Amino acid sequence: MEGVYRLVMSCPDRVGIVARVSNFLAQYNGSIMEANHHADLEQGWFFMRNEIKASSLPFGADTLAEVFAPIAADLNMSWRITDSAVKPQVVLMASRDSHCLADILNRWHSGDLDCDIPCVISNHDDLRSLVEWHGIHFHHVPVDPENKAPHFAEVERLIEHYKADTVVLARYMQILPPALCGKLPYRIINIHHSFLPSFIGARPYHQAHERGVKLIGATCHYVTEDLDAGPIIDQDVVRVTHRDRIDDMVRLGKDCERTVLARGLRWHLEDRVLVHGNKTVVFN
Amino acid sequence: MEGVYRLVMSCPDRVGIVARVSNFLAQYNGSIMEANHHADLEQGWFFMRNEIKASSLPFGADTLAEVFAPIAADLNMSWRITDSAVKPQVVLMASRDSHCLADILNRWHSGDLDCDIPCVISNHDDLRSLVEWHGIHFHHVPVDPENKAPHFAEVERLIEHYKADTVVLARYMQILPPALCGKLPYRIINIHHSFLPSFIGARPYHQAHERGVKLIGATCHYVTEDLDAGPIIDQDVVRVTHRDRIDDMVRLGKDCERTVLARGLRWHLEDRVLVHGNKTVVFN
Amino acid sequence: MEGVYRLVMSCPDRVGIVARVSNFLAQYNGSIMEANHHADLEQGWFFMRNEIKASSLPFGADTLAEVFAPIAADLNMSWRITDSAVKPQVVLMASRDSHCLADILNRWHSGDLDCDIPCVISNHDDLRSLVEWHGIHFHHVPVDPENKAPHFAEVERLIEHYKADTVVLARYMQILPPALCGKLPYRIINIHHSFLPSFIGARPYHQAHERGVKLIGATCHYVTEDLDAGPIIDQDVVRVTHRDRIDDMVRLGKDCERTVLARGLRWHLEDRVLVHGNKTVVFN
Amino acid sequence: MEGVYRLVMSCPDRVGIVARVSNFLAQYNGSIMEANHHADLEQGWFFMRNEIKASSLPFGADTLAEVFAPIAADLNMSWRITDSAVKPQVVLMASRDSHCLADILNRWHSGDLDCDIPCVISNHDDLRSLVEWHGIHFHHVPVDPENKAPHFAEVERLIEHYKADTVVLARYMQILPPALCGKLPYRIINIHHSFLPSFIGARPYHQAHERGVKLIGATCHYVTEDLDAGPIIDQDVVRVTHRDRIDDMVRLGKDCERTVLARGLRWHLEDRVLVHGNKTVVFN
Repeated sequence: MEGVYRLVMSCPDRVGIVARVSNFLAQYNGSIMEANHHADLEQGWFFMRNEIKASSLPFGADTLAEVFAPIAADLNMSWRITDSAVKPQVVLMASRDSHCLADILNRWHSGDLDCDIPCVISNHDDLRSLVEWHGIHFHHVPVDPENKAPHFAEVERLIEHYKADTVVLARYMQILPPALCGKLPYRIINIHHSFLPSFIGARPYHQAHERGVKLIGATCHYVTEDLDAGPIIDQDVVRVTHRDRIDDMVRLGKDCERTVLARGLRWHLEDRVLVHGNKTVVFN
Repeated sequence: MEGVYRLVMSCPDRVGIVARVSNFLAQYNGSIMEANHHADLEQGWFFMRNEIKASSLPFGADTLAEVFAPIAADLNMSWRITDSAVKPQVVLMASRDSHCLADILNRWHSGDLDCDIPCVISNHDDLRSLVEWHGIHFHHVPVDPENKAPHFAEVERLIEHYKADTVVLARYMQILPPALCGKLPYRIINIHHSFLPSFIGARPYHQAHERGVKLIGATCHYVTEDLDAGPIIDQDVVRVTHRDRIDDMVRLGKDCERTVLARGLRWHLEDRVLVHGNKTVVFN
Repeated sequence: MEGVYRLVMSCPDRVGIVARVSNFLAQYNGSIMEANHHADLEQGWFFMRNEIKASSLPFGADTLAEVFAPIAADLNMSWRITDSAVKPQVVLMASRDSHCLADILNRWHSGDLDCDIPCVISNHDDLRSLVEWHGIHFHHVPVDPENKAPHFAEVERLIEHYKADTVVLARYMQILPPALCGKLPYRIINIHHSFLPSFIGARPYHQAHERGVKLIGATCHYVTEDLDAGPIIDQDVVRVTHRDRIDDMVRLGKDCERTVLARGLRWHLEDRVLVHGNKTVVFN
Repeated sequence: MEGVYRLVMSCPDRVGIVARVSNFLAQYNGSIMEANHHADLEQGWFFMRNEIKASSLPFGADTLAEVFAPIAADLNMSWRITDSAVKPQVVLMASRDSHCLADILNRWHSGDLDCDIPCVISNHDDLRSLVEWHGIHFHHVPVDPENKAPHFAEVERLIEHYKADTVVLARYMQILPPALCGKLPYRIINIHHSFLPSFIGARPYHQAHERGVKLIGATCHYVTEDLDAGPIIDQDVVRVTHRDRIDDMVRLGKDCERTVLARGLRWHLEDRVLVHGNKTVVFN
């Protein structure tokens, strides 16, 4: 795969932003492989993502950032430049259920997910062998329900130790403390096993069964301090009928969960997800 | 289309129900065109629907009901027999938006909906011409926001006058008074423009836009005294993106609403929907 | 709705196209409401669509085209500029089935389709009243199966008379002669009642039933001289089961057909569909 | 999970079949957990599946078959009785791609697929470690493109050796010889990476990309002597756009393939799939 730099930005909307940025790139002969724009006219905000062929530029990502910085400052941009050659470090967290974890590991192992997975952290030891077969460190960090602080302290230490760019809660089933959430803004991805905002909180399939809905779903979102209320990256649903008991819903929902999580994670890793307020722009 | 009788029943589950009913039908040489069973093992409840070729029986629907009654009593059934030759009377209620109403009228006019539509009731006069073109009575019954009682009294009178079997709220936008709901249990069908239980109440597309969901939906349900909380007949969703403004959501949602309402209404009219507790069994 | 100009173009890919175009627009203070790019790296071809707020420019669409022409020539563009204030003239053609026609007419009547519909042409008289109720001319042009030439001559005359920009075959069921297709390249839209390339030609639901597929579909495409082989604009599917007979498939398929046709037509009318080779780029 | 017997049958349609069978079951106090009927009125054929609680009967599956045989003979049934306590033996065949294989193994390992997997056969050695980690025998049986007979002879020997009830071609990529297909009628399941009958044969994603379709799909079907023409068990699709290159289609298609194969295999293993002519009845 051809190496690319990804220039991702948002700023107050005004005339001439695209001209400024595209002139800048053209001036260095930058070859744009993919470009996406979005103007949120209500909010007056502009979003843009460019993939530039790395070899078309006369310099590397660091210099690109340096020479772009004045334009970004002038236009009041939130922005970042990432280099596809530098793999993001993704720490996975799980509990006992393997369906999401095994799915991510298989995609990674098949070369379909462009990242490093330095370790998996779990509050149970069940998934150790699966993880270690993939050549990935497994950390069993038990939770004491009476005193969860030591667990989260160790989790935080591991996240720092492995220099995680992104943390994925692959059915981790614990609620992260606000302080930890705050340290990795829009870098912690959760899969919730309902079509949010329906069935927030615990046991959503039980809630769905109780209500008699005809579709169940899954939601991939960034974790914020508000439980299940962070910006939504992707969602999907699957049809159920009166014949489906709770265990059928759980089974059908699993397919939905792993697909939605894999899709959301991929978009995140390719810098396709921009957050504004509590909503996402997804350039997929 | 071959005429059929529909024998629809539910009762406490036990061994031998199917044998009793199928023996009964076989004894009169009844030819079963379609049969559906469902045993809810958690609730201990059994549901069944049979379509019997009318011409295969030596008697009509009334006699069928008479001879079946002792079995039904013995098994503590809730049951009904309907004759496909007797068209149900469906009163439609609408407000200003035509998308659901026009869709139902076109299906009816094309012969795809097997019912009579004796009248349409609306709190506005906008849709009169559309309705009257189809040869259907149109009743404009204005609502005084300060005193809605006269409106609902007249609605109730019309429903009775036209001997409505079923009332469809095709984006009627008013909340029916509990007393009226209670008179037509599981006979009033509403289309709610969200994927319930998300976004109950007013302006669901605005709520969806605010929350940043990636799918919006529609829900067809029976109206009960609890707003938007009645048994769900069908639901569906459509994908939205960050590019979709509220008016795009409204437009995309309309397609979802009319499809879901038409599907739910069809199943209801074919006696495919059985209610138990606050949930439906849909033999589609 | 704010008036916009749509600048739609495709050309051989090279560095600097976006810069040239966005500079051009910025120079006249053009406010970009929506922008879409696509580089087909295999074909070495570039596609772009810009919506510019009409009131932000100091001149009208004609002058915009004039001042843009040299850039377009320099970059070897296929291009067009359309003005949202000038409604496209859409001639509808139908046969006997009303589902697609009634759907388009209802959307148009509700203000959801931004075009004029100067007339409907049909080889049968069945839909006259429906069309005329909408205040639209209806032309019954019968087909003599032994000699179809007079029919098509009259159709061609009407298309010219009404200055049609776009012709929609809303289940018209006749095969247009190649010469007529050639006169309106990528301006004639058909809805085919199968998921192409499955079940080309006649009676696709019968073919689908015979093969035992579990999903049926519909395809909206531009009409070319090759039957059912033109560039695909949109497709969708709906699930069927062993219980569905051919008439059920027809009924379920109708919902799919009307939704897909309406979606494709809308994108076409908003200049979101660009054709390259036998494929479409759809900036939706 | 409560043990069940599954009584699955099809026969010429006539009055009284359900009565005969349900009387038979009621007479032995058999408790029906789930029942499904289907009358194909065009073909004059009747299909039925009953799940009977094993512990409700006074005898085992063998005796059940014995006492039922006269009724089956009398009604000219094709029929079978299976015991959920006897796990089917499923042999998996794969090539180099792991996505379908890893998915099935994860479901099996998680207890979501009720079968034994005695071995995996592959023409390459790549997937050995994945398979062996699950504690399953792996047989690498290379194919000589000049002379495939020895490969298939060994495959056949292994299928017999492991007493396979079902063989799953999980992206095996070789065409089984007709003689081998004939030995396991409706017991070999394939996943084809297109929405059949579109894109039969090799490289369906390339064909789909060439045609410019807007949805790609996957089809799970029984293998017969006619390539990609056997009875379809399940299908699904996923949306693609002009931005998706062939490798994107392959990636998106993989999710579709594994979901459809897992669903079809599950239904097959639960005896929910009945074949009649070249079509399936799926009681799901």
